[in-house]
Amino acid sequence: MRIEKDHFGTAELSTDTLHGIHTVRAIANFPLTGPVVSQDLIKAIAEIKRSAAEVNGQLGYIEPQKVTAITQAANEIIDGKIEYDFSLPAYQGGAGTSTNMCINEVIANRALQILGMACGTYSYIHPIETVNMHQSTNDVYPTALKMAIIRKLRILTEAAAELQGAFQKKEKEFDQILTMGRTELQNAVPMTMGSQFASFAQAIERDRWRCFKGEERIRTVNIGGTAIGTGITAPQKYIFRIIEKLRADTGLPLGRADHAIDSTANADAYVEVSAVLAANAVNLIKIAMDLRWLHSVGEISLPQLQAGSSIMPGKVNPVIIETVIQLGLKAKNDSALINDCAALGTLQINEYLPLLGDSILGMIDRLTDASNILSKHVLGIVCNKEICEKRLFNTTSIITALLPIIGYDKAEVLVEEFNTSTSKDFKLFLIEKLGSEIVNQQIDPSKLMALGHKIKKVVSTEDS
Amino acid sequence: MRIEKDHFGTAELSTDTLHGIHTVRAIANFPLTGPVVSQDLIKAIAEIKRSAAEVNGQLGYIEPQKVTAITQAANEIIDGKIEYDFSLPAYQGGAGTSTNMCINEVIANRALQILGMACGTYSYIHPIETVNMHQSTNDVYPTALKMAIIRKLRILTEAAAELQGAFQKKEKEFDQILTMGRTELQNAVPMTMGSQFASFAQAIERDRWRCFKGEERIRTVNIGGTAIGTGITAPQKYIFRIIEKLRADTGLPLGRADHAIDSTANADAYVEVSAVLAANAVNLIKIAMDLRWLHSVGEISLPQLQAGSSIMPGKVNPVIIETVIQLGLKAKNDSALINDCAALGTLQINEYLPLLGDSILGMIDRLTDASNILSKHVLGIVCNKEICEKRLFNTTSIITALLPIIGYDKAEVLVEEFNTSTSKDFKLFLIEKLGSEIVNQQIDPSKLMALGHKIKKVVSTEDS
Amino acid sequence: MRIEKDHFGTAELSTDTLHGIHTVRAIANFPLTGPVVSQDLIKAIAEIKRSAAEVNGQLGYIEPQKVTAITQAANEIIDGKIEYDFSLPAYQGGAGTSTNMCINEVIANRALQILGMACGTYSYIHPIETVNMHQSTNDVYPTALKMAIIRKLRILTEAAAELQGAFQKKEKEFDQILTMGRTELQNAVPMTMGSQFASFAQAIERDRWRCFKGEERIRTVNIGGTAIGTGITAPQKYIFRIIEKLRADTGLPLGRADHAIDSTANADAYVEVSAVLAANAVNLIKIAMDLRWLHSVGEISLPQLQAGSSIMPGKVNPVIIETVIQLGLKAKNDSALINDCAALGTLQINEYLPLLGDSILGMIDRLTDASNILSKHVLGIVCNKEICEKRLFNTTSIITALLPIIGYDKAEVLVEEFNTSTSKDFKLFLIEKLGSEIVNQQIDPSKLMALGHKIKKVVSTEDS
Amino acid sequence: MRIEKDHFGTAELSTDTLHGIHTVRAIANFPLTGPVVSQDLIKAIAEIKRSAAEVNGQLGYIEPQKVTAITQAANEIIDGKIEYDFSLPAYQGGAGTSTNMCINEVIANRALQILGMACGTYSYIHPIETVNMHQSTNDVYPTALKMAIIRKLRILTEAAAELQGAFQKKEKEFDQILTMGRTELQNAVPMTMGSQFASFAQAIERDRWRCFKGEERIRTVNIGGTAIGTGITAPQKYIFRIIEKLRADTGLPLGRADHAIDSTANADAYVEVSAVLAANAVNLIKIAMDLRWLHSVGEISLPQLQAGSSIMPGKVNPVIIETVIQLGLKAKNDSALINDCAALGTLQINEYLPLLGDSILGMIDRLTDASNILSKHVLGIVCNKEICEKRLFNTTSIITALLPIIGYDKAEVLVEEFNTSTSKDFKLFLIEKLGSEIVNQQIDPSKLMALGHKIKKVVSTEDS
Repeated sequence: MRIEKDHFGTAELSTDTLHGIHTVRAIANFPLTGPVVSQDLIKAIAEIKRSAAEVNGQLGYIEPQKVTAITQAANEIIDGKIEYDFSLPAYQGGAGTSTNMCINEVIANRALQILGMACGTYSYIHPIETVNMHQSTNDVYPTALKMAIIRKLRILTEAAAELQGAFQKKEKEFDQILTMGRTELQNAVPMTMGSQFASFAQAIERDRWRCFKGEERIRTVNIGGTAIGTGITAPQKYIFRIIEKLRADTGLPLGRADHAIDSTANADAYVEVSAVLAANAVNLIKIAMDLRWLHSVGEISLPQLQAGSSIMPGKVNPVIIETVIQLGLKAKNDSALINDCAALGTLQINEYLPLLGDSILGMIDRLTDASNILSKHVLGIVCNKEICEKRLFNTTSIITALLPIIGYDKAEVLVEEFNTSTSKDFKLFLIEKLGSEIVNQQIDPSKLMALGHKIKKVVSTEDS
Repeated sequence: MRIEKDHFGTAELSTDTLHGIHTVRAIANFPLTGPVVSQDLIKAIAEIKRSAAEVNGQLGYIEPQKVTAITQAANEIIDGKIEYDFSLPAYQGGAGTSTNMCINEVIANRALQILGMACGTYSYIHPIETVNMHQSTNDVYPTALKMAIIRKLRILTEAAAELQGAFQKKEKEFDQILTMGRTELQNAVPMTMGSQFASFAQAIERDRWRCFKGEERIRTVNIGGTAIGTGITAPQKYIFRIIEKLRADTGLPLGRADHAIDSTANADAYVEVSAVLAANAVNLIKIAMDLRWLHSVGEISLPQLQAGSSIMPGKVNPVIIETVIQLGLKAKNDSALINDCAALGTLQINEYLPLLGDSILGMIDRLTDASNILSKHVLGIVCNKEICEKRLFNTTSIITALLPIIGYDKAEVLVEEFNTSTSKDFKLFLIEKLGSEIVNQQIDPSKLMALGHKIKKVVSTEDS
Repeated sequence: MRIEKDHFGTAELSTDTLHGIHTVRAIANFPLTGPVVSQDLIKAIAEIKRSAAEVNGQLGYIEPQKVTAITQAANEIIDGKIEYDFSLPAYQGGAGTSTNMCINEVIANRALQILGMACGTYSYIHPIETVNMHQSTNDVYPTALKMAIIRKLRILTEAAAELQGAFQKKEKEFDQILTMGRTELQNAVPMTMGSQFASFAQAIERDRWRCFKGEERIRTVNIGGTAIGTGITAPQKYIFRIIEKLRADTGLPLGRADHAIDSTANADAYVEVSAVLAANAVNLIKIAMDLRWLHSVGEISLPQLQAGSSIMPGKVNPVIIETVIQLGLKAKNDSALINDCAALGTLQINEYLPLLGDSILGMIDRLTDASNILSKHVLGIVCNKEICEKRLFNTTSIITALLPIIGYDKAEVLVEEFNTSTSKDFKLFLIEKLGSEIVNQQIDPSKLMALGHKIKKVVSTEDS
Repeated sequence: MRIEKDHFGTAELSTDTLHGIHTVRAIANFPLTGPVVSQDLIKAIAEIKRSAAEVNGQLGYIEPQKVTAITQAANEIIDGKIEYDFSLPAYQGGAGTSTNMCINEVIANRALQILGMACGTYSYIHPIETVNMHQSTNDVYPTALKMAIIRKLRILTEAAAELQGAFQKKEKEFDQILTMGRTELQNAVPMTMGSQFASFAQAIERDRWRCFKGEERIRTVNIGGTAIGTGITAPQKYIFRIIEKLRADTGLPLGRADHAIDSTANADAYVEVSAVLAANAVNLIKIAMDLRWLHSVGEISLPQLQAGSSIMPGKVNPVIIETVIQLGLKAKNDSALINDCAALGTLQINEYLPLLGDSILGMIDRLTDASNILSKHVLGIVCNKEICEKRLFNTTSIITALLPIIGYDKAEVLVEEFNTSTSKDFKLFLIEKLGSEIVNQQIDPSKLMALGHKIKKVVSTEDS
């Protein structure tokens, strides 16, 4: 048993407990049922502690053996090997102070253990004065959050690349299948099913590019700025070295904010990242709904994966599509929450960063999950060529392909005539009315997908 | 090792695994990183399984010894004693089918174990034909969700009642402390600090009442409606008995939907509940921000709970307030997500119920947490009477209390005169200008808080 | 030309300009491009001015001839006959002060004109001291807003009633048409098209009821509370009489807030109303999307209303559906904005009431428009019986109707067998396998829509 | 009187009515109370009509005299000189078809008038076959919307530049004023008021840059793609020339979409633009709230602009701040609506583009208004140096500046000692305890704002 004290009193801790009194306070103050702080964020904070200890060691602020022990303790967190359960509530107040404090305490005590000293021997290694030296929650927390976001964005980028690849595979596979293009869910004009999947691929390609650009928006960090970005309490040498060290240690393209007061106070950079993610969410929802629609009308078949009902034998539901839509809706709406957090921050820091950070990391996870399960699903999609083509040629919508030849008014007349006739095959009807040459020429697949026609002579309506 | 099969192939399961092939499919299909299905929802489903088995037993559809075993298995889930980890992803597709299937399988296999039979002996107790008899995911899942919501709403109601009580305690305590009322964050007219806390109490009282009314909105359930609300496959006697049994077994005031097709298809009832919660969220955010403001200007002091900074000694932050605001923002925004889910459901069921359900249960948890931590915090609030009164009497805003006597134009003149004078105490200034009798009479605390004045003689501006 | 002055200087106004210097300030301060203040709100404020003048007259605070002139001026606004263009920006700061000030000025000057006096003769009738006597923007504005909301809610209720009626007409019309019920957009079990429309009618019926309840939530007003709800500057007699007078003059069931400080400070009542509207929006979106889906697959036909394309002859789009969805989306999202406004209000009033009020009035207008155009559209819907029934009997989903007889496992076997056979008509296939008696009995329309079956003898799976 | 006909019947129009039957249908089908289509969008469509007519003329599809007349008619719309009131409802269904149709009709009829022919002589100039030649609503409408957005973004950029300039002017003006930096609204560490305004300027500078980048995201247009992006009905030469012509005629940096099917179907580009605007909204809200806070505590004074109350003489409210916050909230929430519209589009076009477009143009207007009124307001802000400095030196928060010298534990002890002492001036207290040299050196303004300190010798806690 050991006793620690703070401004507000004392706390009893068992001898081996790695956290200290500040964590005791946090546990007491935030008895919340919601999610806990992301492990990726905790690891990123530990990385900063490690880099900071080493820089402080190089500058003579911390003795080498302490630096070594702190580094080892931090590594145990980073590698997930520490015997400590960082289950801090994600929606804690205090702008992340409790999370930072807890990690300071755990590293200090673990480092003391490594050095064979008792937990709580803070006169030797102090959670704040040693482990947190030249740092503040207000520069550590946002810097770590950005590190965690960048890494997750890269994972999302890979997932998006795979999804794009899946769509492109299908684009090629369905390249020669003519099908009905639809606007406002009504038959419009012909296209190929390959083009349909190409347009999905294009949307996801933009998302990939956005993730890449999103990284640029948040790679500027305020580490070294301490409490409000002025670097108060930190030596200048440390400020310049810590960013270099962190970049080297993590391999991430981090840059020092030119105006760290601004960087500490304003959270609009996260709005940009959440917007990137919102665009991805929007595309995933749109694509998933389109795939479901095409599957519902039988033009494509989604892979069948599990019994869809506890009561209706043989029923199979588009469960992956529905999962993707739900993940997309969740991400889409979290972007509004992030905007709220960013808007409501006050003066020198954004006190809602814990909620903002948890939401943005969650968004990326949701979208990565969605891309992953959708990629696999898309690869199993089959296009039902007969249905597509039969449907296309049995409607009047191919008339548009003839507009350059016959004009709008005449086309309307033909459509009306067909609709009141007993004929069911519009292609045959057109051949009967206009001759096979002109019809076959215009409804040829390659012709339909070429950009524009090359008809020379124009027959105007008034002449026909 | 045992083998199970479905439409899509087979799955190997270890002899003692309680779930079956449908759960195997779900695990494979939904490799998601997000939250898992609420235990409260799982328990509510198990309750329905129990009641259904008993009704089916009474009607002769299931043999007594099977009913007993199923009941015992369900009770183990309800009591949290079953040795099975229901970690199904909350954002699964399939409208909850996988969750229902998993519970069916676990109950069937556990019941078989209880009866000394091997897991997988479905010819004796079948997950679907026996455990799910006369049920569908589409009536079980929403009914269970509503049961879980009602129970959580009651917990929230209690938390809100405690918060209201805390505010009322302070209302009484600060009853005689005059302070500045502020509109648009500018000094307005006098009030008591007690009234300030009374208005917080009033808002929370409405929230309590809303929770109570919210329960009414969702106590109508579609159990017995099976797939789409028509009760297909279920015997009429079962349909009428299951709702009675469930009401009796749970003690919840559940009612059978008159039009179960509507009740199965439409999710607007959840919008109403989420709106109740949004109103509570809005009130909590508003109140928390007000408390923080009053604390910032020193008129009240929030309890000091933990060191607020890893760098600034002695700094203490309003961490409970910030937690409450974050929980409120989260709940507020989840209400938009619930609206989305409800709006996008299609035809005979809402396929986004898993996301909707998880969000609404989460909202209630967030708000309950918020009320709980805020209640405790409010009880520790101190009002700094000297600051309140000094600030009040040193501003010109108390002039309003004299308007019935002196009129607006004259009041404006006095204010202007005071502002250009060297005087700092407006009360003294007024006494000098208007005499002490009239001033003291009008600025008397009890007078100020009474509803309106009783001045008989009106001195019109033009006469003055 | 006349000169008016305020705290900040003077303003030149032409002799006949009805507004005064406070409006001049507002025009200069808020050069906004957005919407202007709702005329309904302006008229409701004028009604309050009229009632207040009359009460003040009865109590001897304003001379009879002034009351008469003020009443006449207010009536001109209420009747839309005043020659003044109230185009004040809706998103003005100041919690509505400029709107209230402008109406005070216009009424004062118009009343002076009526009495044959020059505009600006404020020593006789003063915009603030006379017209605004015993009032504050902070009680006038929210009271007027609630009056305007109640009236609009009633219009929406009528529009919803008409929509409900339209659905019920179709419910009856399509009562005998069997069709496929669909869950997760996949074929599920049979139902009638009448039931489909009945479930739309039920949802809208709840919306009607919600509108009615919504009125209850906001009929409590803070008029008489003046600046912050304490009634400061107002005589007690006035406070009690004004609410009676306003109720009598308007015929609206207004009630005085018991705790006017709370009523002035907290905006959660609007959250409840916006939630009512959000539920209606959600239902309209859901229904519109369902109608579009059923139209897309040909089971119903929406009325054709206009050429759907400038390029594709004969194309007709579901434009009313798309309008309804857009109006629903707009309303749904405005509800989030209203929540934001309500959450961010500070201390004794909600300074964002102008935005909140404009949004809530707009929501009601959008939803009323949506119901109106949809009602008319629904009446023209035709159900394509042949398509519905052919589709139903050509799928395996009707197997569910036989589950009580044959059990799930056997049903699955039959479905699989059918799917690998060359047969296309599942009903015939079933008759072949099970005999016509059992099949026809179970797939009988009236049987299918009855709540549950009455089969006595249960053939368990293991026996078959 | 003239008669026009379409698929659905006939319509009587007065001889001179510029619109035709398609507009008659739209008016009848969309009797909406909401906003009307943006004039900027209508003008952009007219510009496309003009360019298309000229390209079609060059290619020999339209006779020169017709081109001239169409061009003149289009110019009349562009210049706002046409005698026609384009009050089409903004929330119309049909993906903008009615708007495009109306403009086609008005241009055709006006061109006929110019040529001395009767309105309705469509055999000569046809609204669709001539004016809409080689176009579709589906390429015209989104292209025009992007043109309108780009132009408005440029206006917003200018407004943001002005706002940035205003903040920078104050940054310089307040450069030497020390004040309290605050985190979580609690006293933190010293900074200058200049830095505060610099951080506002930085945020707005990023917004400017985002507007610039936002333009890049939407300058790629699908004109020439016609119905679904395949360019069906349009000659290839036209497709390549129209984009060149439009770029030349408008001076906008428009580019042709490589994959026009994608560009027609997917609306994620608008999500990016709305995100840019959301970031700006978030910054404006954050800044406005900060300014209001600093004004409330007296450290800055906002310009006084208008009487703030109809009842409290002398009260002045931060009305510009409140307007900015409301405009920001409106824009923030519209971004969620835009995401919804983008997510819900189906297959080959986004049918909710009318709502999306109106919302995005509105967002830009709101934000431009906000920047404009805030710029002017900021220029009038005064910093109250005495209040700032007195407050700074009377708190313990400056202790942080001494941490590098004395360490955290000793600092905590000093703070506690001061708090229990009768001393009120912490600076004097520190001088007494630590000597004036060390205190003055560390609390020197230039020292405080320098990035980090250069203290060589570190006095560790254990030595003190």
